[in-house]
Amino acid sequence: MAVYNPPLDDMRFMLNDVFNVETFWQSNEKLAHVDMDTVNMILEEMAKLAKNVLLPLNRSGDEEGAQYHGDGVVTTPSGFKEAFEQYAESGWIGLGGDPEYGGQGFPKMVTMLAEEMVFTANQSFALYPNLSVGATLCLLASASEEQKQTYLEKMYAGEWAGTMCLTEPHAGTDLGIIKTKAVPNGDDSYAISGTKIFITGGEHDLTDNIIHLVLAKTPDAPAGSKGISLFLVPKFLVNADGSLGARNTLAAGSIEHKMGIKGSATCVMNFDGAKGWLVGAENTGLASMFVMMNYERVTMGLQGLGGTELAYQNAAAYALDRGQGRSDTQIQSPEKPADSIIHHADVRRMLLNARVNAEASRCFAMYVAKQLDESKFSVDADNAQAAEARVALLTPIAKAFLTDKALEATIDCQQVFGGHGYVREWGMEQIVRDTRIAQIYEGANGIQALDLLGRKIARNQGKYLQNFLAEIRDFVANMLANHEIKQATLDAAATIEELTTTVLANISTRKSEINGCAVDYLHAMGYLCYAFMFAMMVEAAHDKEGAFYSNKLKLATYFVGRILPRLHAHADMVKTGSDPIMDFDLSYFSENVS
Amino acid sequence: MAVYNPPLDDMRFMLNDVFNVETFWQSNEKLAHVDMDTVNMILEEMAKLAKNVLLPLNRSGDEEGAQYHGDGVVTTPSGFKEAFEQYAESGWIGLGGDPEYGGQGFPKMVTMLAEEMVFTANQSFALYPNLSVGATLCLLASASEEQKQTYLEKMYAGEWAGTMCLTEPHAGTDLGIIKTKAVPNGDDSYAISGTKIFITGGEHDLTDNIIHLVLAKTPDAPAGSKGISLFLVPKFLVNADGSLGARNTLAAGSIEHKMGIKGSATCVMNFDGAKGWLVGAENTGLASMFVMMNYERVTMGLQGLGGTELAYQNAAAYALDRGQGRSDTQIQSPEKPADSIIHHADVRRMLLNARVNAEASRCFAMYVAKQLDESKFSVDADNAQAAEARVALLTPIAKAFLTDKALEATIDCQQVFGGHGYVREWGMEQIVRDTRIAQIYEGANGIQALDLLGRKIARNQGKYLQNFLAEIRDFVANMLANHEIKQATLDAAATIEELTTTVLANISTRKSEINGCAVDYLHAMGYLCYAFMFAMMVEAAHDKEGAFYSNKLKLATYFVGRILPRLHAHADMVKTGSDPIMDFDLSYFSENVS
Repeated sequence: MAVYNPPLDDMRFMLNDVFNVETFWQSNEKLAHVDMDTVNMILEEMAKLAKNVLLPLNRSGDEEGAQYHGDGVVTTPSGFKEAFEQYAESGWIGLGGDPEYGGQGFPKMVTMLAEEMVFTANQSFALYPNLSVGATLCLLASASEEQKQTYLEKMYAGEWAGTMCLTEPHAGTDLGIIKTKAVPNGDDSYAISGTKIFITGGEHDLTDNIIHLVLAKTPDAPAGSKGISLFLVPKFLVNADGSLGARNTLAAGSIEHKMGIKGSATCVMNFDGAKGWLVGAENTGLASMFVMMNYERVTMGLQGLGGTELAYQNAAAYALDRGQGRSDTQIQSPEKPADSIIHHADVRRMLLNARVNAEASRCFAMYVAKQLDESKFSVDADNAQAAEARVALLTPIAKAFLTDKALEATIDCQQVFGGHGYVREWGMEQIVRDTRIAQIYEGANGIQALDLLGRKIARNQGKYLQNFLAEIRDFVANMLANHEIKQATLDAAATIEELTTTVLANISTRKSEINGCAVDYLHAMGYLCYAFMFAMMVEAAHDKEGAFYSNKLKLATYFVGRILPRLHAHADMVKTGSDPIMDFDLSYFSENVS
Repeated sequence: MAVYNPPLDDMRFMLNDVFNVETFWQSNEKLAHVDMDTVNMILEEMAKLAKNVLLPLNRSGDEEGAQYHGDGVVTTPSGFKEAFEQYAESGWIGLGGDPEYGGQGFPKMVTMLAEEMVFTANQSFALYPNLSVGATLCLLASASEEQKQTYLEKMYAGEWAGTMCLTEPHAGTDLGIIKTKAVPNGDDSYAISGTKIFITGGEHDLTDNIIHLVLAKTPDAPAGSKGISLFLVPKFLVNADGSLGARNTLAAGSIEHKMGIKGSATCVMNFDGAKGWLVGAENTGLASMFVMMNYERVTMGLQGLGGTELAYQNAAAYALDRGQGRSDTQIQSPEKPADSIIHHADVRRMLLNARVNAEASRCFAMYVAKQLDESKFSVDADNAQAAEARVALLTPIAKAFLTDKALEATIDCQQVFGGHGYVREWGMEQIVRDTRIAQIYEGANGIQALDLLGRKIARNQGKYLQNFLAEIRDFVANMLANHEIKQATLDAAATIEELTTTVLANISTRKSEINGCAVDYLHAMGYLCYAFMFAMMVEAAHDKEGAFYSNKLKLATYFVGRILPRLHAHADMVKTGSDPIMDFDLSYFSENVS
């Protein structure tokens, strides 16, 4: 079976050494109740659950898959229901929830480490509680007090689950053209009718009720994205006393057969005049949903991190065990017919690529989580606003860069296994298949890049970026460590600054410049972010004794010399701009295909 | 169903305009019988077969998979047998075979275009005839006249199939440690005993007999790779009159369940004192097998090309059809709720990345095929030898670079589909899964890179490379076209030359330098090769009228500005060298995993 030992040492390094969380928490009255002793217990509990309960269901869940049985009935793979009950009963879904409604109020910096372990052990399983958490965040931000009272506690407790119903067959990225209708019933409810697709956890056997958050249009809504409202549409209506009432007129029509995350039920949901209630004001649905979307987007980065971590650990274990050929330096195991492949530099290169991604993306996710916590808990309004701007800037990177690099990492780790990586038995191909979805859903990575370059850079003429670059430079200037990561980070920052000036200038003359450069710009930015993370890790490690810390410095050295040069390639491609893309007539793309 | 219209125009462009094949063929008495009229007919026939017979079996073959029924019985997916019979009866397996034994004697430049179409339409199916062709090449090069007489004609005709049995559970890359034994029976035969794994087409229901080429060790063989012999081990023994005799004592023990190429039976083969005959001299088995391996390696590049072409065509078709959002430049379809996504620069970027790979890898495969033809058919011994050296240099690139870039291309094309790319229905995820294997088998891509930098560069101190660079510079110097590809190609050549000097110097002081730099070196070289190919395509197109030709120039411009910068990132990573990789203690890799 797959190896997975949750990297608690690295998590504690992030919390204690890199981010000084206790100081951070103490400085904030709303977080002062959090302490590392409790957090350590939380991490250790989740480590056990992830390793002993969720990991053993990972491959069997993939083999069995979620099943559609007709008449709207969907079952999850064997063992998922029991695991979910254990997960829910231990309070994991409400870990970051609002204490006023039964949540435990832990900050994102803690919940994300727990989430990382769930995603590492079992990506399919992780999506069920994950969607519930996202839905509670959305309700907390936009729902009425009565709605919060009715739904949040049950959802935190995992008695009820939540979904997000956005996509329709003809409308994914472009939600402005959705067709689902919400017609007032005359009381405070609406009749919701339409078909939603790709609904993760749209139907399953894990909970007594499922609370769907559905985007729909009221009869007189304005056209496009300004006319979208958000509705709460429960699978079972809820009586005044909180007990379950009638079955609502909605059902899963089928589930998708997919490349991966097969244990996760991806449903076609048919709403047939289903009873729903407006969440927030009419026509503000997209904004309300984005509260949830932004949370999910950071979380998708964690999915990438999870895939990377599991792939790395298994590839490292295999490389230590598998004998093939001899080391280039000296024979390592003369008593055996071959040395283990860990002695081959190219095998190490693949492992180190994955490890760079695991540690840099863990650190980056923590950094974004800290900004999320600042924006949510800071008592200083300016501080909160600055953190919010930083979150806005970095969310698309946390989603897209982390998942793009994660796919590369899982492929590298699969490659370590040679032919054994391609057969199902070893589990590596499943990690690749599962991780692949994270680049696609919750806003495909190309859309994240448009968000970054269009909304987060161009719209404010690079102001958010300038603030971020100032922080990076300030940090490096104050570093006590002596390490090549310092100059490398400054160089990367300078490249990004110059590149941004170029792009902003080109945008004025080339209409497709943002669209044509966004992905490479995002990758260049992503490498800068990783450089900054390694700078922080180096600074936290440089004056400490022991291999754990000295290896941090070595990994940063590896990153500078063997990974970071890619930043410049992406920068050069951005500088080329969009002209060579748009120079083709439409007919070029219809050659042979129509 | 999937779109596939074989790109015959581009194939003819390669043959006629880029490589002037008729002149080449006329100049060579052994090829003078080949003419473009015949070749056009061949391509058109294969186009029909690929599109109408093989493509429709691609998805159903994946869904059904090859099946193991116990007792050594393996069946291929429904329709494969009929398709194989049609394929065989039309003479495709013997297309490049030796006319003396019933082959048709066409050069590799022709057969590879046919093979490309087979791989594009159905990667799983393609492997069955492909392994047979490889086996015939091996027999042609090393077998006795009697063996050739007995086996080749039947194999060319597709009545019998062939395999290559190399890998054992403990021995893949490192064939020196195989355990399969060959004990002389006292007559001219040997008793072969051992277990081989990952045997493509090891058992199936397509042919009356299967001729296994098996690596094994005779009782007194020297240790390691110098003690490996090659044996011909038929599933059914062949009587003196060519009819089938007794069933040999070998059988498939099971088949692998894999990430992709599910229609291809990947077998565990158990040889239990099976009767086999030596092919070539004792202890020269590895060299004999490499005749076949080198052929297969170039062919794996074609598999990558096929995956790229199919992914591109389907993604382009989808992008033309799928409406979502509005064009950045101006509304394109005011009558519809959204413009088609082909108007988005980022969608075009993904398509163009794939198209660059399709056209550059087709051109590169043709270039290598031309060298293979020169080495095989040239009447001038010096010329043949030079071509052979060029093949040696470029084979690892043709295998590894083309398949690495192909995976990227198929992933880009899958991404064009958004969520629809992840569900099985659209077929894109299958292309990614199928194409992935080409990076792994026939020598994993890391091994190809070692072959390039170790054997083909370092061992001759860069001599093969210098000759290649001279050809590139000579070609560019004589170009009549005025295009940025010229300078870009010269710059790339200069970078590779300088880089090679650096690496060769570093090798002397760093024992792991080749192993630690080989993959990035291969990628840098690969981009140089693509630049050279675009230079050749530009030169062939620049003075011709029509969109087909002007688009070739535009694609080269796109390549220079939006792809080629990656060469420099890989070069920088090579310059960093292997020290940051080898600087870690072994214990670093056992953290958390043991």
